[in-house]
Amino acid sequence: MKVYLDNGSTTPVLKEVVEAMLPYFTEKYGHPLFIYSLGRESYDAVEATKEVIADTVNASPEEITFTSSGTEANDIAIRGVAYANKSKGNHIITTKIENPSVLRVTEALEKEGFKIDYLDVDKEGFVNLTQLKEKLNEKTILVSIMHVNDEIGTIEPIKEVGEILETLNYKVYFHVDAAASYGKIPINIEEMNIDLLSISAHKIHGPKGIGALITKKDVKITSIQHGYISLFKLKPGTENVPGIVGFGKAAELAFKDFNSNVAHMTKLRDKLIKGIQETIPDSILHGPIGDKRSPANVNFSFKYVEGESIMLYLDLRGIAVATGSACSTRKLEPSHVLTAIGVKPEVAHSSIRFTLSKLNTEEEIDYVLKELPEVIENLRRISPIKPGAF
Amino acid sequence: MKVYLDNGSTTPVLKEVVEAMLPYFTEKYGHPLFIYSLGRESYDAVEATKEVIADTVNASPEEITFTSSGTEANDIAIRGVAYANKSKGNHIITTKIENPSVLRVTEALEKEGFKIDYLDVDKEGFVNLTQLKEKLNEKTILVSIMHVNDEIGTIEPIKEVGEILETLNYKVYFHVDAAASYGKIPINIEEMNIDLLSISAHKIHGPKGIGALITKKDVKITSIQHGYISLFKLKPGTENVPGIVGFGKAAELAFKDFNSNVAHMTKLRDKLIKGIQETIPDSILHGPIGDKRSPANVNFSFKYVEGESIMLYLDLRGIAVATGSACSTRKLEPSHVLTAIGVKPEVAHSSIRFTLSKLNTEEEIDYVLKELPEVIENLRRISPIKPGAF
Repeated sequence: MKVYLDNGSTTPVLKEVVEAMLPYFTEKYGHPLFIYSLGRESYDAVEATKEVIADTVNASPEEITFTSSGTEANDIAIRGVAYANKSKGNHIITTKIENPSVLRVTEALEKEGFKIDYLDVDKEGFVNLTQLKEKLNEKTILVSIMHVNDEIGTIEPIKEVGEILETLNYKVYFHVDAAASYGKIPINIEEMNIDLLSISAHKIHGPKGIGALITKKDVKITSIQHGYISLFKLKPGTENVPGIVGFGKAAELAFKDFNSNVAHMTKLRDKLIKGIQETIPDSILHGPIGDKRSPANVNFSFKYVEGESIMLYLDLRGIAVATGSACSTRKLEPSHVLTAIGVKPEVAHSSIRFTLSKLNTEEEIDYVLKELPEVIENLRRISPIKPGAF
Repeated sequence: MKVYLDNGSTTPVLKEVVEAMLPYFTEKYGHPLFIYSLGRESYDAVEATKEVIADTVNASPEEITFTSSGTEANDIAIRGVAYANKSKGNHIITTKIENPSVLRVTEALEKEGFKIDYLDVDKEGFVNLTQLKEKLNEKTILVSIMHVNDEIGTIEPIKEVGEILETLNYKVYFHVDAAASYGKIPINIEEMNIDLLSISAHKIHGPKGIGALITKKDVKITSIQHGYISLFKLKPGTENVPGIVGFGKAAELAFKDFNSNVAHMTKLRDKLIKGIQETIPDSILHGPIGDKRSPANVNFSFKYVEGESIMLYLDLRGIAVATGSACSTRKLEPSHVLTAIGVKPEVAHSSIRFTLSKLNTEEEIDYVLKELPEVIENLRRISPIKPGAF
């Protein structure tokens, strides 16, 4: 049996999505800037997709910029706002548990003289709102907080952050990296007071190579990329029309049966958590439980064994999962997220992230719950680290 | 009959290319950074494609960075070298006829304090090498010259420029935008002394949304984008694996029958030029003739009529072509390239660019040569501008 439980890293593209894209490779291949028929056809497809995406988060079509990834959306948003507003202030607030696609950007800005505060989180990964209020000042131009933590599934209090920023007597832009929540947790940029939102297609069964940044009309933002004119001021270059169309179809399908998909994932998530807790001793769940956890995320440390070994042994049994920091696979540092919630390095190194999608089945979870305890037991038998070591 | 003659803007994706990509959407969808089987499969596909692309220009696989477009490759190359070497100098040389994806970048750098010289070109679009030698000085850090002009097909003397830069007793990096030449004119970065080369998939029957920057190992370059770790230092974010695989297949097919493809395009090009010159009075060919012109490019002005009208009337007859500046479609300024070669604005506005690919046929050219004279004649009949007006 093959079980893919790394949907937080990337997802298989749905057949319907590929089918929607196909004509845009071979038949409707016109350049969307050209006003002959083939070009207009592509232009219309891009415009239609802007509407589809906008509808899913209560935005307007003209607020959509298609990017080449969620990473790029974060870079364009954060540096774009930083550069455009630096005459007003050089202070940015984010969190210690952001995705590297945010942290690498804020680190680059620090080198350029911006002052960045990284908010602490509690043991379940919830951002400290008291600290946020303390750090906010008239030099603050941007707050960037992820909607869902990609490693431990914590759903951050985005609406509360939006309300805090709304009550200030100076304007602070609010950017939300929603790569891990889009299509799984409702997002309403108006109700949540979000100014900029980053999303990605390949996390919702769309193609790799396409993301989007939603930028409210009144946001003061500078383009950080330069080049050939395109339909998008913030992202020059020939539009990836098939990718855009695929993103639109994936979004349409993600939101079509939204509630039943979420209910399905939640059921599988809770079955997996319960099954692990019942069958594997010394297993530690990271992140919150219940409705403040992403329906798609399960993260456990299995003490005394290395996450990487677990991953490779599960792979031999057809099960794909992520380990440690899902975003630092080829590095050996412990996850910055697990570190931030107070997990010791040794325990962090034994963590495994299981991320679900609407395509996973109960049978797959049963299979994992049959194989995983064996893998852990076998590895513990040969582990040089023994119970009691930490 | 449908005739697509705007292959310089973008091309249809070949069936074989789509077929090569398909498994990477639905089956081999793993994230290439992960070391479980699905991830390694994607990683291997990226690595194999690096070799394919490297081979086509005599580079090494580790010199390849996949980008989201040729535009992005130019931005990463030019700003990356500019920022990394600004302690050495702030002088950059380029030409007046570069693609906007270069010119918008150099304009941005000018605002940041870099000094840019824009070389003149002669009436056929060839860059002035005497002027290049005059402008070079110890503050010069970069020369960026396109291989083939995308509007008028001029093949620039890249090898001669490389030789000039090689003889200097200080290092000047040489960047070449090869979007319009790759797959049609041989490129050898070693023999041509090229340090950085930009190419694009969708100009050679590959997918939109993927390009590459080839950067020689010893080039001092800074990353201008920040974010999530990837296989490419200069382009963060999840790799567009299907796009990369498609690019590789398109390159493989472009170089497989390179000489016969080039001979075929050259034959069609010369047939179209000759046919137009014989049947349409007051038609002016822009750019050189013979082997110093891209095999894929024909550009004529048809005096007394607007290019946009010609384009739209040809579109009604199933023929897709570009007009004026192929890169400023939704603007009304005359082409900067035609202006640089000394074409008057009125004549520039009546220009039509026909760009060929290996897929075009003699029958298609016959069809164009039947329809085009009628379209021009009809338009001239209703034109308010009469012969003798300019």
